[in-house]
This record gives sequence, structure tokens and C-alpha cells, in this order.
Amino acid sequence: MVEAFKAKNKINGMYEIFENVYVFQFARDFMGRFVYSFSESGEVIKKSDDEKLESMRSLLGGKGFHLAKMSSMGLSVPCGFTITTEACKNYYENNKVLCPKIITEIYESVKKLEVSSNKSFFHLDQYSANKFPLLVSVRSGARSSMPGMMDTILNIGMNRIVAERLLSHIKDEVFVLDVYIRFLQMFSEIVGEVSKSELDFYNGRASEDKVRIFKKLYERNTKKTFPEEPKEQLIEAVKAVFRSWENPRAKFYRKMHGISESEGTAVNVQMMVFGNLGKNSGTGVAFSRSPITGEKGIFGEFLEKAQGEDVVAGLRTPLPLSELKNKMPEIYSEFSMISEYLENEYRDMQDIEFTVERGKLYLLQTRTAKRSAEAALKVSVDFVREGKTTKQEAVLRLDPGQIERSMYPCFDYHALKSAKLIASGLAASPGVAVGRTVFCAKIAKDLVNTGEKVILVRRETSPEDIEGMQAAEGILTACGGITSHAAVVARGMGRCCVVGCEKIKVGETSFTVDELTVNEGDFISIDGSSGKVYLGEVQAVGAKFSPDFEVVMSWADELRRLGVYANADSAADVRHALKLGAQGVGLCRTEHMFFKEERIKAIREMILSKTDLERQSALKCLLPFQKSDFKEIFSVLESKPITIRLLDLPLHEFLPESDESLEPIAHDLGVSKSQLLEAVNLLREFNPMMGHRGCRLFVSYPEIAKMQTQAIIGAAVEVFFEFGYKVEPEIMIPLVGDVEEVRFIKKIITETAENLILESHCESFVKYKVGTMIEVPRAAVLADKIASEVQFFSFGTNDLTQMTFGFSRDDASKFLNNYYEKNIYKFDPFKHIDCEGVGALIKSAVRMGRSINSRLKIGVCGEHGGDPESIKFFNELKVDYVSCSPYRVPVARLAAAQAELARNYNVF
Amino acid sequence: MVEAFKAKNKINGMYEIFENVYVFQFARDFMGRFVYSFSESGEVIKKSDDEKLESMRSLLGGKGFHLAKMSSMGLSVPCGFTITTEACKNYYENNKVLCPKIITEIYESVKKLEVSSNKSFFHLDQYSANKFPLLVSVRSGARSSMPGMMDTILNIGMNRIVAERLLSHIKDEVFVLDVYIRFLQMFSEIVGEVSKSELDFYNGRASEDKVRIFKKLYERNTKKTFPEEPKEQLIEAVKAVFRSWENPRAKFYRKMHGISESEGTAVNVQMMVFGNLGKNSGTGVAFSRSPITGEKGIFGEFLEKAQGEDVVAGLRTPLPLSELKNKMPEIYSEFSMISEYLENEYRDMQDIEFTVERGKLYLLQTRTAKRSAEAALKVSVDFVREGKTTKQEAVLRLDPGQIERSMYPCFDYHALKSAKLIASGLAASPGVAVGRTVFCAKIAKDLVNTGEKVILVRRETSPEDIEGMQAAEGILTACGGITSHAAVVARGMGRCCVVGCEKIKVGETSFTVDELTVNEGDFISIDGSSGKVYLGEVQAVGAKFSPDFEVVMSWADELRRLGVYANADSAADVRHALKLGAQGVGLCRTEHMFFKEERIKAIREMILSKTDLERQSALKCLLPFQKSDFKEIFSVLESKPITIRLLDLPLHEFLPESDESLEPIAHDLGVSKSQLLEAVNLLREFNPMMGHRGCRLFVSYPEIAKMQTQAIIGAAVEVFFEFGYKVEPEIMIPLVGDVEEVRFIKKIITETAENLILESHCESFVKYKVGTMIEVPRAAVLADKIASEVQFFSFGTNDLTQMTFGFSRDDASKFLNNYYEKNIYKFDPFKHIDCEGVGALIKSAVRMGRSINSRLKIGVCGEHGGDPESIKFFNELKVDYVSCSPYRVPVARLAAAQAELARNYNVF
Repeated sequence: MVEAFKAKNKINGMYEIFENVYVFQFARDFMGRFVYSFSESGEVIKKSDDEKLESMRSLLGGKGFHLAKMSSMGLSVPCGFTITTEACKNYYENNKVLCPKIITEIYESVKKLEVSSNKSFFHLDQYSANKFPLLVSVRSGARSSMPGMMDTILNIGMNRIVAERLLSHIKDEVFVLDVYIRFLQMFSEIVGEVSKSELDFYNGRASEDKVRIFKKLYERNTKKTFPEEPKEQLIEAVKAVFRSWENPRAKFYRKMHGISESEGTAVNVQMMVFGNLGKNSGTGVAFSRSPITGEKGIFGEFLEKAQGEDVVAGLRTPLPLSELKNKMPEIYSEFSMISEYLENEYRDMQDIEFTVERGKLYLLQTRTAKRSAEAALKVSVDFVREGKTTKQEAVLRLDPGQIERSMYPCFDYHALKSAKLIASGLAASPGVAVGRTVFCAKIAKDLVNTGEKVILVRRETSPEDIEGMQAAEGILTACGGITSHAAVVARGMGRCCVVGCEKIKVGETSFTVDELTVNEGDFISIDGSSGKVYLGEVQAVGAKFSPDFEVVMSWADELRRLGVYANADSAADVRHALKLGAQGVGLCRTEHMFFKEERIKAIREMILSKTDLERQSALKCLLPFQKSDFKEIFSVLESKPITIRLLDLPLHEFLPESDESLEPIAHDLGVSKSQLLEAVNLLREFNPMMGHRGCRLFVSYPEIAKMQTQAIIGAAVEVFFEFGYKVEPEIMIPLVGDVEEVRFIKKIITETAENLILESHCESFVKYKVGTMIEVPRAAVLADKIASEVQFFSFGTNDLTQMTFGFSRDDASKFLNNYYEKNIYKFDPFKHIDCEGVGALIKSAVRMGRSINSRLKIGVCGEHGGDPESIKFFNELKVDYVSCSPYRVPVARLAAAQAELARNYNVF
Repeated sequence: MVEAFKAKNKINGMYEIFENVYVFQFARDFMGRFVYSFSESGEVIKKSDDEKLESMRSLLGGKGFHLAKMSSMGLSVPCGFTITTEACKNYYENNKVLCPKIITEIYESVKKLEVSSNKSFFHLDQYSANKFPLLVSVRSGARSSMPGMMDTILNIGMNRIVAERLLSHIKDEVFVLDVYIRFLQMFSEIVGEVSKSELDFYNGRASEDKVRIFKKLYERNTKKTFPEEPKEQLIEAVKAVFRSWENPRAKFYRKMHGISESEGTAVNVQMMVFGNLGKNSGTGVAFSRSPITGEKGIFGEFLEKAQGEDVVAGLRTPLPLSELKNKMPEIYSEFSMISEYLENEYRDMQDIEFTVERGKLYLLQTRTAKRSAEAALKVSVDFVREGKTTKQEAVLRLDPGQIERSMYPCFDYHALKSAKLIASGLAASPGVAVGRTVFCAKIAKDLVNTGEKVILVRRETSPEDIEGMQAAEGILTACGGITSHAAVVARGMGRCCVVGCEKIKVGETSFTVDELTVNEGDFISIDGSSGKVYLGEVQAVGAKFSPDFEVVMSWADELRRLGVYANADSAADVRHALKLGAQGVGLCRTEHMFFKEERIKAIREMILSKTDLERQSALKCLLPFQKSDFKEIFSVLESKPITIRLLDLPLHEFLPESDESLEPIAHDLGVSKSQLLEAVNLLREFNPMMGHRGCRLFVSYPEIAKMQTQAIIGAAVEVFFEFGYKVEPEIMIPLVGDVEEVRFIKKIITETAENLILESHCESFVKYKVGTMIEVPRAAVLADKIASEVQFFSFGTNDLTQMTFGFSRDDASKFLNNYYEKNIYKFDPFKHIDCEGVGALIKSAVRMGRSINSRLKIGVCGEHGGDPESIKFFNELKVDYVSCSPYRVPVARLAAAQAELARNYNVF
């Protein structure tokens, strides 16, 4: 065995991440058989290249694959065989009947198992008194890990005669009865479909009575005699495990994790070993490193005189694994070696199940260990330091989703235990927030100015609430889905947000939940990652940026090709983004800048202008505000790149929505209520998403583009003179659909910019670029023409997705669930980019754009820019950068590195 | 000259329709010179092939081209020269300065003109007493005809000395003074920009005083001395004509007619001939056939002792041309021959200007004659009968727009003279209507049932008004643009409609215009082609379908490749469409069927259903209605093809919009007002166009698709048994964006259909097809996948245009005017298909679809299906058919034939 440890690491640990590829090819070569012993498949695995390994894994399932692999390493694995996923498919195609060929192969494999175990799988008609009885386990094992979702039956092969035979060998009546009862219980539940509660009713010591009762329960439920014949038990068990592929929780799990329904599960039939067979026996689960911290050394739990499920069941408290060292020092040392050996072989931290039967160690399973984000980072760094993996592998192994989640603060685990949960809504923007309840955006802002922390609670939010939302720690709304105004804006700002919390009734200065009233000023705590709302202050813990995190991120930065920029609209956002590793700002939206108090008045005056002159004078008021915003942002950015999108909001969003707010606003603006109402009505649109916004505004009101350009270039000039930073702002025109639109607006921008630059004698220091969003399908179709006029493209994948699919995100949330339920869509196209539809437009636009203008800078600034799945796709297209919300910058850096690595390894 | 008449027709008459092609190519070859005498360019024209001819036309403008051409035919054209459009461009590029090269060339050409005319263009410094003075006209002449839009100046070369010289030759003081005053008036107005009203103030007899006054007016206005030097006059006149290219009415005309701003105008300088020079002189305009009826023979008017503008000015009543026969029989007979000769040469009916100076006939202009629709049809048929053109040419010559307009009824010309115009709105749907004013859809329906004709007058319409709109003769609204609900629905129904008639204030039972009140029941007359509203009953005349129309249409049908179907939602529409030559129904919308009184209740019950069972029972009520609608339609269609679109309307459109209508409807449905309001709010959408509609409804409520399929197939079965018609309905799924949507809904359709067909034993008689609208950009991108599941595509170009451009038609009407004004868009993409954007998607979808499914039937059913420009494009793509509103079927047939001919002649 020590020899085996010294064997070279021949197997490429990379295959773990090669999922979904080359899956069925090898299975076809291997066809014609449905059952393989571990030693047979172990031999094939030894000789397989990466491609074949994947096929083997698909065929044998994860568990079968690892058992065969461990077996081929010479490790002590109870002998057994795998009934392949192809058999499962055959079973389903055959209307849930096991075909004779499969049954024959199973019987033949049992015969071989009798030989290798030197035990006898009992036959009622072939009684063999001398041999030790062979009992087997039947376990599911799909290609993709689905822990606990499908069924397992132990101790198959038991009946009264076998029990007597066992007793004659072991002389331990309690043990034998225990084995018998465990078998009957599982078999009745899983094959006989007797309810668990009914079986649990007879909880207590094993007894002859229980044997009788469990068989009766089986017979009552199935209207069939209980099968005493072990072969029959085995076949029924295999079928039951195949059927468990389709149980509701397994289906749900697959939907959650994107596992294909057609994969099917393999079944592993394995000689039983007994951890409950006297003093020198036991069972345990161990990790090769700490799953919490990643610390090196085996961690786990151990239970003497027990079978595997006893550790999980929690009826007896298991011992820490260190106890094993005292109790069975040889076993402990053997296990330590095996743990290290497996870690080396798999080149990853392992989660290992083992059983000791009368002093002999058996390995029942090994798999990649689940771990905390902290552990994942530490293990990655340690493995590279220890020379066990390359940086590339370490980066590839990390789960970007886990890293992302660890970026947000969360509630303290212990504090949460005593917190009072009062309601649940939809998790709309991650992180947690604690603060005083406030119901009005203005009050929120004022309170925050006095140093308070607040949570803004609204029935729903509207654009007028922006300032309050920015001031608040978090936002809670009673209405709206995860694509509602509150949700979208909060995510953009990186504010924690819970929406659609329908249980709360929001009043003027309080909200109620059932009998409870929460008044203005009372503390609440909300969790935007879970949607939960708590009364009072729950202690939060911030995200930790361990040194390991920094090391891993620096590797990712080395390995990625794609730039990672942030979407940031304020100096604070920019500061945060830079801290998280953004290389610049890929999307600076200017519309929020208009919502601040003094500014919204000016923009409203502009909207109500009757003449160009009036409009220009209103815009003149806005200019200093815009310029100072940009100055602040540029100062933080120093000379890093920034893409600034010109105003992209339908004008009506600046006007009051509700009837009540008309009066004071009209008064403030010095117009009559009816005049204001007329303007509101005039600007109302049937489909605001497809209305008068983006560059269409500038065609109508070129003065807006002019003012914004003045602000941007003016700020760049001042920042250059004051700090010496050479800012090169990229001025982006939104919602372009035609090259003539670009020409028209570009002319305004360049004339304005050139004049300003000339006036301030900055020709050699202040540069700028002009580019467009590509977010209207027509812009993608005509990308070559548009590219001839601009220096950069930025794909606005949110709108592009909406228009290409022809549904608005807000409205679609109502019916998309039907699409998932009916399996029409596999995923939310607003979360992951739709490669074949929207992606095809992007791909051809990139190609067309570059064909005309090889120096065209191309980025992505939609929410997909922070989604690892989508980043893979964008990396393939060789765009220059993605831009995402600051919190997602680290995950994007990681995902970009993974995408580039995967591309080079030809994984896609 | 008679020899010239006998010359063979060498020039291809086809070039008239070859506009816009090869335009600048030849101009470039010809560059280096800016001025050509008629004889020079006439020589080039003689030797030119079609391509060069077009270039010549661009270079010389229409007038110059025809003058040169006539000159080359040996016809008597006053000698002269053309200053090219290139010179005009040069003038504009040169900041409105005539470059020395052009001036030199003009002077050289004047010298040649002196030689060929044997007259002298007076030079102040080179007084030549013996020669007859040469006066010239300076006329604009762009490539595209822009009648009356630009300027002309006659009698250039006049001054006091020349006047004396003229008098010495002619001895007619009145004539000379008349010539002098005419010159001064035109020159002061056009070069000096003296206002016409000021000049008109001095109306009356020519006098020496007037000479002085007009020069003074010129000098006061220009602050320059009046130019006495003829050369200076000529140069100023040429510049003024060039400037007139940019006058507002010319710009407007170009925008209206899609003429490029960059063409520029040529200027023709020509020896003056004087129709006012005594008894044997005169001037006239004649057509080679009647422009009203198309009858053969010269028609026109003649004025003795007059110059050209006198005919137009209407100060003297011209004589019918037949008088010329008596007065100047030789001239008449010569002119008749020339007229026939020109018709043969140009192979089209001509509009000829001529002048007789002292018994000598001069031709001043010939051009293709404008004519009425009736005349156009007759001339086409006669020319083919006379062997002058082929059917192909005859079909190509017709103006589809003119034919379309002639399809609609209009008000009697004489009746209109005495009609009282009370208001004007936007012409939203052509035709005229007369009826009693009604303000409520329900009353409209009831009144119509008693045999009255009504006009429905509303502030704006909503879907609830559908039945009233269908019942009414016409619809008039105070609000909304030509894409408002009223307009779109009316066009769909072929109802005459005027919208946005803002002057009328609509009350409950009356409307007012200024002081006038029109009460319910009063008669009004509206013209949907002009937007005019008249008080009382104005007599209307219906469209005439002359035998010539039928002949021309039969040629078009022979020559076209593209099928022409109609959009028709009722048996009446279908009947009308078939009469106008539709080959079938390309789009039968089913949503209007739901709005009839008994049905809307059932559909509302369906919407309010809480359970599937309730929903099914509501749908069960609708089934018989739907089935009987289809039966009626199928019976009219006999066995012709029909494409039926499944329900495509957001459900909220079936619920009341206004607060007032909630109460009665809730009562009617047996629910509380708040329940109904809740449903209304729940269904409200942010962007209804991109909401829960089309096939998305069937994913949520498959029962609707099932019910509709039952109705369609059930009707087909019954029509087969009752009448023996083998209907093959094409069931169309709207708003598809993914092949899985198609699979899901197709399964429902085919299962339902197959069951019904099997049950009724109609397998061999009742067939059906399943297909999709392609109207969402994603469907176009994924057309290959979708094609694998369907038998036909129908491009819904309205929605495809909206989503590809990313603007909704309703909202875009507000800002698109800015786009036209600023020259960003050249045309309305909802009127003509956007070939390069939307068209590119269609093109690739056609290719992809056919690549997968070569038998795929492909049609177009958006409003572009009836637009000649768009039909050209669709014909190029080789789609199978276009479908349009019944009224547009003839124009589509004609346009399809023209498109096919043009394709074969390689015109596009």
C-alpha cells in the first residue's frame, strides 16, 4: 500500500472543472455493457486521457468513478460494481422496466463479487452453509454531485436464513438484529414507499417484532410479498434508486444547479463493511484540511461501533478525529497518509468517508471538499506554496459565486440566533443594513446628515427618492420585484435592498406587520442577500479581505486578458471600486447627478422651457454642479480611464409622478399646477423604455449634450491644472440606432470640447474619446457604420437583451416563471447573457466594428459584466473589458482569469 | 425637319424610371467643364448608352437634358447652354461664390451664343449698332422635376441702350417697354429680393416710371447700383437661381419627394424668343393626350401675343389649342407632328411648351406629362395597343401611389366648392365618410343597426370602442397622431379616419369648433385623405374600376412573382379583399373577434379566473363564437389560403381603462369593484408593447391556444362537410423569440388539431400548417432553429421595426420629426422598410430559415406589405408573398410587378 502512495501523480487534477464537455462520446464507445466492477473501470480510468476520463465520469457517476479510481490506486475500497448512467437512461426509455440484459449483467457482477469478497450472496435454492454471507449497499451516484438528494439502501441480502448464518459467524445477536432492522427499514421506506413517519413510529431497540412489523408495513403498502430472495431485493433496490432520480427534491436541486435532466444516475453496488461490528470498528468523515479556515491537517469526526449514517443522524455525539489517534493509532496514521495521498492525487482538498471493520480501514468515498470562502482562498494559496497545484489550477478551482458572496457584509451568526425575524421579502441587492426606520427620502437624507444610519422604507420607490436611497444604509419596499426601480437602483449603488415584502403595510410614519407596529426612528435590520427583515439592531460583520484574497486576486490579474472596470456614478463609488481592484470606470451614469435637490429644480425648469433661451439658461444652472461632480470623480481616479454616459432617462422621470406632489413642485417652479400637469401628461409615454430618451433627447435638445460636454471637459481641464492628472474622458452616447445620430451628436460634443480645450490651451494634455452604447438591436446590426464614427463601443447588455427578446425586464418578471417551469427557458437572460440570441448580435457587432476600426475599444457595461458565465462569453469575443458594480469587481477579476485559462485549455 | 420626325426611336424610353442610378459616375468622367451648349450636350446624348444618359441627366438637369436632346433631334429649340449641377455644387462648396473658371466658361458660351443666334449680347464698352440685341432667359433645372420651386428670370440683357436698339429693329414701343418691365420685375424680385407684394403694388401698364421705380426698389433693397451691364446681370441671375435651390419651398418639396439635398440644380441660359412679338406670335402648353381622360390627340391652351407666364398667370383667358388650327394652320400641323414624334421618341405622353415668334415655332420644353389616374391607366393600355411600349414598360411607368389614391372614394369636386370646412386634423386613414355625429361606440352600433350612417367622434379611442368603430363610416378624434389607436385600428379596418383634430372640443353629446356646436345626430363629412372636416353631407364619389384598370392589373399579375394577400379579420373584409384581387388572407387577426359584446364578457371572466377550471369554462363560452367567425370567413374564401394569428393582445386591453367604467363592468361580471380594480392593476404593464402578450400568453394559459385551435380546425371541418371547401388554415404563433416557445405551443396546436381531425374522419381533407410571426429581433437571429419547427414564417415588420430601432411607434411620433428636420432619418421606417437595419435582419432570417427548411413559406404581414418601396425590397429577398390591407391590394399587385421587372432589368 505504501507503494501505492509513492505512485506518481499521473491523473490530471484539472478534470474537476472540465464538466459538461465530451460527456457522451466515450460512453458510446463503451456501450454494449451496463455494469462494470470497480477494478475493471479503475483499469480504464488509469489508462484514460482527459477526454476519456470525462466520459468515464459521466458513465459511472461521481461516486462510482472515485471508488474505481481509489480502487485502481490500490487503496482499500470494499469491492463492488457500478451500474452505469446508460443503464438508468435505458430504464427510463424502457418505461421504467429493467431490461433483461441489465439484470443478467448485474447477476454476473454479483457472482464476481462473491469471488472477490470470498463471501456468498445468499440464494434460497442454493444454500451454502460454509461461506460468510455477502451483504451489499446500493447507492446512487450521478455525474454531478447531488448530496442527499437520491436514495441509498444498505445491508441488502438479509433475510431470516442469512441472519442465522451471520449469527453463526459473528455470535453477536444485537449486531445481527441491528443489521436486519436497518435493512428492513430502508428497504420498506425506499422500495416499499412506506412513509418515514410510520417507520419512525416504531423507533427504539431492534427486536424480532420490528422485523415482522416492517415487513407487514411493506406488504400493506405494496400489496406484494416482502422479497426474501436477495437477488430480488437487489433488483428492486436498483430500480428504486433509479426512480429516485426523479423525486421532487432531486428535480428541484437540478433546476437550482443547472444540472441536465437527461444525465441520469449510476448505481453502485458494494460489499457492506461494518463499522458497528464490535470494539475495533467504527466509522468517520474527515477533511484533509479545515473546511472553515483552510488550516492544514485532517479534521473530522469519528464514531466507534457505528455505521455511517449514525454520524449524520446525530443520535450519538461523534468524537473529534484526533481521538482516533489515541484509540486506534495505526488506523489514524494510515488514514493520515491516505488523506495526504488523495489530496496529492486529486490535487485538491478532500472530504473522505471511511469505515473500520475489526481493525481494517476501508475507504467509502472521497470527494472535493466543500469549504468556506476563507478556507477556499487559504487552500488555494497553500496548495500553490506547497507545490501541489499551479496558480492556474488554484484560480480555476475557486467558485466565483462564493467569492462574490463573501464580499458583502453579513449578520453575525450568533447575533442572528436571538434576532426577531418579522418579515421576508425578495433579496434584491446583497449585503446587510441596520438603521432607523424612515419613510421619506428627504427625512432620510436629513437624518443621515446628523450622523444617523437609516433604512428607507417605502411602498415602492420612484426616481425622486434617489437621494434618500443614496443616503440610506438599505432600502425596504413592500411592492415590486427584483427588477423594480428600488432593486435596480439599489444594485447600481451597491445599497442593500429588500423588495416585495408584501407582509408589511407601509403608512406615513410607521409600518405594521400583523400586530406589530414599527414607528419612524425604530431600528430594523435587513438582509439583502436573504430578503429577511429583523426588528432592532442585529450585529453585522464586514467582509474580510484576508491576505490570501489579495494573493489570489493578484494571480487572477496576472492571468486574465479582459480588463475589469466598475460602474460608478460618484466619487465614493469610484473610491470603493478602486479599492476592490477596478482598473477604471466603465460606466459613469450622469442621470443620478440630476436628482440632487438644487439640481432637480433646474432640470425641471429646463423641461418646462418654452424657448431655447430658457432651456439654455436652466442648463447653465446645472453646469457648475455637473462639473464639480466630475472633478471630484476625476480626482479620485487620477489618470485612470472613465467612460461617461450622457443623460439617459426619459424626461418625465424628472417630473412628479403622483398627483399630491404636483402642487408644491409647481409652486417651487413658479408655474401653475395645470401647467405642470400638462407637461407631465405631454411627456407621458406608452412604452417609456422605447421612448424619448438617450441620444433621442439630444436630437431634440442638443443643448443638453453641449452642457454635459462642457462639464466633462471643463472638469478634465481643471483637474489637469490643479492636480496634474491627465484624464482622458470617454464620452458615451446612449441608445444609438443609426450612424447619423452619432454624427449629429458627435459634432456637438467635439465642437464643444475642442473649443474648451483650445481656450484653455490644453491641446496636448486633455484628450477625450467619443463612443456609443450598443444597446439597440439596430446598432448591433449596423455596427460597422457606427464604428466608422467612434472610438469605442460599450455593450449595454440590459437594454440589448430587452429589445432583442422583445420584453421589458419589469414586465417579464411576471411571466418568466412560467417559462422556467415549462422548461422553455433554462436561465434568466438578464442574469447570464443569452449567447445564441443576444450574444450572436454582440459577436457580429464586435466583428463588424473591428473590421472597420481595428483600434476600436470595446467593453460591456450591462449587469452581465459582473456575471462569471457571461464573462466567459465576453472573453471569447475578445472584448477589451467588462464593467460591473464595485462589489462584483473581485468576482469579475477572478472570472476573467478563469475564462482566459479555460479558453487556453480549450474547455469551451 | 420632317426627316427628323422619321428618324428611328433610338433612345430607350425606359430611362425615365432609371432615376437614382449611376448618377454621378458619368458626371465625373465629364468633369473639368461646367458649361455645355445644347448642341454639344445633344451630341453626347445621342451617343450615350443608358448609363451615360443618366449621368448626363444628373449633370444637365431635366430641362437642360431635354433641351439638348430635342436640339439633337433637329427640333427647333432656341439656342442656349447649360451650366451644370456640378457648377452648382462648386458654388455651394465655394461659400456661394462663382469661381472664375465658371464665369469664364459662361462668357465663352455667351460668345458662341451670339454667333449661333446672330444677335449681340450687349456690352457697354463694345457698342455694336447693327446687330439685333440678344436677350436670354435664365432658368433652373434640377435632375428631379421640381415644378415651380426654383426661380426663372427672363429678358436678361436689357438696359436703356438695348431697349433703344430693340425699338430700332422692332418699332413697337409697347412691346419693348413690356420686355423691359418684365425683366426689371423678375430681376428685382429674384436677384434683389424685393418682396413680391411691393412689386405688385405697381401693377398696371408698363411705363417709364415703372422702370425707374423698379430699379430704385432694387437699389434700396440691395444697397447696390442696378447692374446695367448684361454680363453682370447674367452672372447675378445665375447665382440667384443657384441660391433658389435652397429656398424654403424647394427644401420642403425635396423632403416631401425624397430628393437628395446634394443634387443641386443646373441653370439653362437660352436665347429669348418672343411670343408677344406681334400678330404672328404666341405661346402655349400642350399635352400629347388628354391629361384628364388619356384620350388621344393634342390638348392644351394657346395665347396669342403673349409670353409663357401669361398663360399661367391667368390674366388673359387662353384659347383651346384647337383654335391654333384656325389661326395658324401650318404651325398647328407642325406641332401635331412634333407632338407625335416626341411621344414616340420618349415612348410616353408629353407635356410640351412652345412659342411662336413671328410665324416660327420654337419648342421650349418637353417632359413626361402628369396625368390623372384614369388617364394613366388609359395611356398605358393605349400605348401597348398602339405598339408604342411593351406591357412591361407600361406597368413600370405607373405610379403606385396614384393608383392607390384612386382606390378610395373622394368628395365630389363640385360639391366640395360649396361645402363648409369647419376643421382640419391629420389624415389618418384614406377615403371619405358622411354620417351622423355620434360620441359613444355603443350608440354608434345601435344607430347603424337602424340603418343610419354614423361618424364616431371621440377625444381618443380605446379598445372598447372597436365595435363602434367597425359600425361607423368614419372616425374623428381630437387627440392622437397618425399612429394613435384610432388611426392604427381604422387603417386596419379600412375605415376613413381623421385624428388629432385639436380644434374640436369633444363633449358628451356634442362637439364645438370655435363658436359652432355640432350635436349628436348632426351630419358631418370627413376626408381621411386630406384630414378635412365639413359640416353637413358632402356628396362623395366612389372609386372607379375602369376596364383599363382591370387590363393593367391583369398585366401586373402576369408579370409579378410575389403573391399578394390581404390582412382581413372578418368575412366582409375578406370579400372586399378578394374583389380587389387578393389571392388569400395573409393575416387574420383574432383579437378583434373578442371585443364583440357577448364575447368580451367571457374573456373578462377568463382573465378573472382563479382556477384552470374557471378559465376553461370561460373559454368554452368563447369557442362557438370564434368557430362561427372562422366558418363565415372560410366560406367566403372557399379554398384559398389563410393565415390566422392566435390572440396577440396584452390581457389588460380587455379590461376597462377608466375608473368610471369599472363599476358597471364589475357588476356585470359579478365581482366587486375592488376585485376588478385589483385585476386591472395586476395586469398593468410598464411597457405593454414588451409585456405579457402574444405567445407569452399561451405559455401562461395554454387553454387559450387550445380553444382557438379548436375553433379554427372545427370551422375547417364543418366548412368541408357543408360546402366541400378544403381549407388549409395556417395557424400562426405571434411574438415568438425562442424555438422552445414554438415547440411548446405547437404541441398544443397539433394535439388539439389532430384529435379534432381524427374524430371527424377528415384526415385526407382538412390539413393545416403551423408557423410563426417573425417580429422579435431574437426570432430573426435564431430563424434557423425556429424554421426547423414550423412550416411558415410571416414577418411582422411593424413590431420588428419597433424593437430593432428600440422605439415604440406611439412614442416615436413625438420625436421623429426632429429626426427628419435634422436630416438624421430620411424617411419614416414605419412607412418604408428600413433596408439596412430591419431589412438586414429579415434578409438573414430568410436565408437562415430556407437553409434549414427549403419549403418554408415566407410572407410579410406588417404595414410595409402594402408599400411599393418596401415591396421592391421584399421581392429582392424572394419572399413568397406580401399581405396588406384590402385597399392596398391593387397597389401591391402593381408594385410587385414593377419590382420584378426592375429586378430583371437590374435597376436596383
